[in-house]
Amino acid sequence: MRLHTLIASMLVVASASADPLPSWNEGPAKQAITAFVSDVTDASGPEFVPPARRIAVFDNDGTLWVEQPMYTQFAFVLDRLRTLAPAHPEWKTEQPFKAALEGDMKTLGEAGMDGLMQLLMATHAGMTTDEFEMIAADWIGAARHPRFDRPYTELVYEPMLELLTYLRASGFKTFIVSGGGADFMRPWAEGVYGIPPEQVIGSEIARRFELREGVPVIVREPEVAFVDDKAGKPVGIQRHIGRRPILAFGNSDGDIQMLQWTTGAPGPRLGLILHHTDAEREYAYDRDSHVGKLDTALELAPGNGWVLVSMKDAWSKVFAPAHESSLPEK
Amino acid sequence: MRLHTLIASMLVVASASADPLPSWNEGPAKQAITAFVSDVTDASGPEFVPPARRIAVFDNDGTLWVEQPMYTQFAFVLDRLRTLAPAHPEWKTEQPFKAALEGDMKTLGEAGMDGLMQLLMATHAGMTTDEFEMIAADWIGAARHPRFDRPYTELVYEPMLELLTYLRASGFKTFIVSGGGADFMRPWAEGVYGIPPEQVIGSEIARRFELREGVPVIVREPEVAFVDDKAGKPVGIQRHIGRRPILAFGNSDGDIQMLQWTTGAPGPRLGLILHHTDAEREYAYDRDSHVGKLDTALELAPGNGWVLVSMKDAWSKVFAPAHESSLPEK
Repeated sequence: MRLHTLIASMLVVASASADPLPSWNEGPAKQAITAFVSDVTDASGPEFVPPARRIAVFDNDGTLWVEQPMYTQFAFVLDRLRTLAPAHPEWKTEQPFKAALEGDMKTLGEAGMDGLMQLLMATHAGMTTDEFEMIAADWIGAARHPRFDRPYTELVYEPMLELLTYLRASGFKTFIVSGGGADFMRPWAEGVYGIPPEQVIGSEIARRFELREGVPVIVREPEVAFVDDKAGKPVGIQRHIGRRPILAFGNSDGDIQMLQWTTGAPGPRLGLILHHTDAEREYAYDRDSHVGKLDTALELAPGNGWVLVSMKDAWSKVFAPAHESSLPEK
Repeated sequence: MRLHTLIASMLVVASASADPLPSWNEGPAKQAITAFVSDVTDASGPEFVPPARRIAVFDNDGTLWVEQPMYTQFAFVLDRLRTLAPAHPEWKTEQPFKAALEGDMKTLGEAGMDGLMQLLMATHAGMTTDEFEMIAADWIGAARHPRFDRPYTELVYEPMLELLTYLRASGFKTFIVSGGGADFMRPWAEGVYGIPPEQVIGSEIARRFELREGVPVIVREPEVAFVDDKAGKPVGIQRHIGRRPILAFGNSDGDIQMLQWTTGAPGPRLGLILHHTDAEREYAYDRDSHVGKLDTALELAPGNGWVLVSMKDAWSKVFAPAHESSLPEK
């Protein structure tokens, strides 16, 4: 008990003495966040939330890291297709593989969701989960973003890393709730975001357990098992977390239902939307973007009390300096 | 850093001074557990496992609490049918409802899996997740076990509560991986086991998000979405946790694949099977039981190094004394 008191008082001193969000400019977004955290952690206040219920959910693409000019996982798909192409001579003539290998985005776009699924299954299924984990980890360790020429894991937003750390230090449990593949994010999310695999919720393909000559493996099957986007996000949250978050942070129309589910109940709740307004340091896009379209959510934000975070205004820094962006392993 | 060192040394002193498993008799099972925990937490030893990888998974029915004379969730189904019956006059003549309401287990057995599904869907679907949470919580707070005449939540095994606490104090994250319904266990698992909802993996029915007159709800649909049993258990583990456990504890053939997945890889690993050998204090059953059948797993245990825990021999106590079994809220 004395030890607990000691730790608690030291934490209070530590948190009072330094700005937990140094890359956030003073303004309404930062103010909303710090007031909310202060309210829910004030044990003597009316808005107190016990630590076990301090669940915070974050979209990934465009919320925690760059999603332009294409989703990082789609860059992975294109690279994997090139790697696998020598074993698939038929891809030279077969669509949508031909278009993908040639970078013919127009034909790819015309192939639509069915075409995308074919590419996803060709690159994400047919191996064991252990094998896919290595493939994803190897790729993320080597690939570089076309504009910034840096590893994708260095193109996570420094202010968001600060926010994740601040929330965890305030007793929150932080989860990713992404339309991207859970098993694509898990190999690096812990090192980069400090979010362990069991707190990464995403889309999933079917998996099957089997013994291969006595060795247990889980095989990834070419079938979509769960799409963690739009109305799928609250379902993924219920499935995986089993209680309602009190804070949600997204950046696109795909996050609307997650924001509704998080903020549409009594008690202190905070919904946030990152608005990409910074063409110079990152990208500027919203209503007309094919990737990360933010349209209906912009309409819904005021009525729902969701806080718009304008990247250009709210953040003094977007990325960490090169070679300093990796969080230590938990 | 100084604070960390202080805490670490105090924890070492605390753990050395008291038996963390007082309800476990000295013997091979207790020895296997304490040796394993000692090995994986010894930072200077060859078997050290970093805390983030100390994942322990537990079956629920028959491993953490009583599963005889019928699965607790099935007792819930029968009670719910009786509660709902006045609104369903057709159940007086329609099978399998008629048999369920009359307690005619022979006819129920003949209705097989299809019949069971009808009963499950009639009692588990058609309401929101919030509503179901209240229904399950109300029921578990009022229902009593037919033989012991105590609430089911008092019929959790005291030695297993000690083990969960011991593992968590040793840096493990503890998960339930049960064939039972995740949303049936979550309302009480945290208070009883100290396991939060997000660490409860179980079977699931389909869920759908919708806005009802502007209010976001998740509706439980009459369709099985996932069966977390047998080969489903490793899949549920991968889906939910995303890394392989190093300790698994089960009690029936439904746990074989979870044990295989957990122990069938290099590094320190521990598989345990609770053997119900204690008709006097609890129940004695294995190969011929309809509930919690333990047959093939008994054959596989020696070759896989799985430790058999004979309830009669390994435990000095089975249940906590009445009115003392609830763990404090986290």
